Amino acid sequence: MFFKVVPVAEAQLSLLQALGSARVKARMVEEVSLARAVGRVLARDVVAEEALPPFARSTVDGYAVQAEDTFGASESLPAYLQLAGEVVMGRPAEGSLREGQCFGIPTGGALPEGADAVIMVEHTELPGDGTVAIMRPVAPGENLVQPGEDARAGEVVLGRGHLLRAPDIGVAAAVGYASLAVFRRPRVAVLSTGDELVVPGEAPSRGQVRDVNSYTLAAAVTTEGAEPELLGIVPDRMESLREALGRAMEADAILVSGGSSIGARDLVAGAISELGSPGILLHGVAVRPGKPVIVAVAEGRPVFGLPGHPVSALVMFHLLVRPALRFLAGMDPFPPEPVVRARLSRSLSSRSGIEEFVRVSLEGSGPDRVARPVLGKSGLINTLARAWGLVRIPAESTGLAEGDEVEVIPIYPI
Amino acid sequence: MFFKVVPVAEAQLSLLQALGSARVKARMVEEVSLARAVGRVLARDVVAEEALPPFARSTVDGYAVQAEDTFGASESLPAYLQLAGEVVMGRPAEGSLREGQCFGIPTGGALPEGADAVIMVEHTELPGDGTVAIMRPVAPGENLVQPGEDARAGEVVLGRGHLLRAPDIGVAAAVGYASLAVFRRPRVAVLSTGDELVVPGEAPSRGQVRDVNSYTLAAAVTTEGAEPELLGIVPDRMESLREALGRAMEADAILVSGGSSIGARDLVAGAISELGSPGILLHGVAVRPGKPVIVAVAEGRPVFGLPGHPVSALVMFHLLVRPALRFLAGMDPFPPEPVVRARLSRSLSSRSGIEEFVRVSLEGSGPDRVARPVLGKSGLINTLARAWGLVRIPAESTGLAEGDEVEVIPIYPI
Repeated sequence: MFFKVVPVAEAQLSLLQALGSARVKARMVEEVSLARAVGRVLARDVVAEEALPPFARSTVDGYAVQAEDTFGASESLPAYLQLAGEVVMGRPAEGSLREGQCFGIPTGGALPEGADAVIMVEHTELPGDGTVAIMRPVAPGENLVQPGEDARAGEVVLGRGHLLRAPDIGVAAAVGYASLAVFRRPRVAVLSTGDELVVPGEAPSRGQVRDVNSYTLAAAVTTEGAEPELLGIVPDRMESLREALGRAMEADAILVSGGSSIGARDLVAGAISELGSPGILLHGVAVRPGKPVIVAVAEGRPVFGLPGHPVSALVMFHLLVRPALRFLAGMDPFPPEPVVRARLSRSLSSRSGIEEFVRVSLEGSGPDRVARPVLGKSGLINTLARAWGLVRIPAESTGLAEGDEVEVIPIYPI
Repeated sequence: MFFKVVPVAEAQLSLLQALGSARVKARMVEEVSLARAVGRVLARDVVAEEALPPFARSTVDGYAVQAEDTFGASESLPAYLQLAGEVVMGRPAEGSLREGQCFGIPTGGALPEGADAVIMVEHTELPGDGTVAIMRPVAPGENLVQPGEDARAGEVVLGRGHLLRAPDIGVAAAVGYASLAVFRRPRVAVLSTGDELVVPGEAPSRGQVRDVNSYTLAAAVTTEGAEPELLGIVPDRMESLREALGRAMEADAILVSGGSSIGARDLVAGAISELGSPGILLHGVAVRPGKPVIVAVAEGRPVFGLPGHPVSALVMFHLLVRPALRFLAGMDPFPPEPVVRARLSRSLSSRSGIEEFVRVSLEGSGPDRVARPVLGKSGLINTLARAWGLVRIPAESTGLAEGDEVEVIPIYPI
């Protein structure tokens, strides 16, 4: 099998195209209470059943009036209106307002019938004779939210596919939803391959090391709002791989990491290619770290053979797995990516023709913030803990200079 | 009671100082499995009990050698070494390597005794006579990770107080932790005040509206990794407020929202001031939206009286509540804040002397990305759903011009 090494953007495109044309398993829908819905994706439109607000509300503390009664009023020549009532929060006004009258009204209070504006308390005085002195004019509609101004009856206020952030939860509450229909979180099977691996709780004997990727990848899956299922360590034998991948096919996506030696890599590629159509899309992207990666789609599921090195595996997760999981969840695969700006502490050279991601730590703040490359052999997991984020060196660049302004992509910020 | 309106930075400082000097309840510690630890804060150092790796490992596929045997080797004049064994993944090498010999070794394999370097398979050939032809020299230590290079025995690899991101989980796995001691998530009591409020599942009668802030604030609390406890709607009466705040004192922090009318605001301030020392620190910050906010510390707990308007409440949450919750959780209160750069679609004016946050939606991508202000009366919750983030206009500025580059702060991205 020969596959060419492709640029990242091309890899992302062919993966999403394959997922789009494969019949991705219908996204399962579940109902969750409003308090638990943040971070989930809407499976059905949220609709305002009735106009919002259903009645005109005051946006200030003051007096409900007929605007016409205030025309021409000024500090030197106030309009005097009869104080005919008080609006109480949470209740309809008692009685309606007639010409020459006003009602006291708090912020949020329901406008009495007959009134068409509110004058702020700051622009009034109480002479003490049962009237209110109005010191300036208001226009009809002033200091009010009109019925239906927030939403018309029948309006879709949040569409299917919307990722629910804190403010959206408030929108759903405002139109009367106590629970929401959301897509089930994608379930992601996570496997590590390698005869040398033992679980973290076990003491490795000579030649063995502890499985790291199962845990970094499961954590990255969690951070993306999906559900990891740890399927454990699989020996480097075709039979074991087949059996484990068979179980993994119950999930919505599969991550296999490891196979850092040439033989092990071929084994993983062989086992993945048997999983179903369309099969392996590409075998390697022009990115450092992370180059050796297998990207496949099998019966509607994305399947990734990720590098054994934890840093490479996480970079590949960010570039390829994350968009696929977002697609499965019904989200925008490539949302705007927030970054932190900083100045580079030293020059970095890069091979032209390959996109490179350099781990950096951040020091200082504001315009003095410095991004310091975390150097170290690619075999060292310790550098993971010191890095705050990644600096991208584009394929067409041969490096960056000390003092250059760079954009730092957070490594899985929480 | 008179309190002056202070700039945001000053409000943040006095809040954190008060929390720092108040005896904050000891942070409770709990043990969670590695798979569930992402997003939590370490309560105890993570220490490498033994050197990592415990043995020298190859970082490439190739042949373990004594470097000296390869000195002077070239394509035209290779060094021929006897192939004396194969290192199998996960096992110590069988036998040790002597002068003039080499062992086949996969990436990650344990270096045999007697060897001090690895030559990549790409720089070798197999003549077929039981020897390996070495086409270039390697230096001692080349293509190896040395024992202890990742971590020395006894080294602290992750310190108490570290926020656990995906790569950190891998570090803990590598040094043998199957579970981690983390701080309990802060519990945050959330209350809404207002006689006009009903729960989202209820149909409001005339004059009533549904409670929005309980749900947006609970979602924001969740997004920050803390645990909201919804204490519901409290009527605008001192007795009810006292009773509800009494119950809320069991939490680690308290958020009261509402009280948009002058009378209701005074009521909330009064009830908060009775909760304990040092009490109310300030009453209003120079920010729009959000100005009317009560910031207090009572018996080691931060207590916030947030504006009734959902957008204002969320902006205040971001500026004041979030740093306090991070402090309680043992995190850096002011982490680097990732932003998205965009060009402003229209000019915005701002009052000098007040810091302003304008909601914007994002359109386009890359250098063509445009931030479009989401305008609308402050009473409209519908604008919440359309805004992607906030653009800050500093207090000293009187506005921004169309086409200006701005940094957009995400509103609770997931």
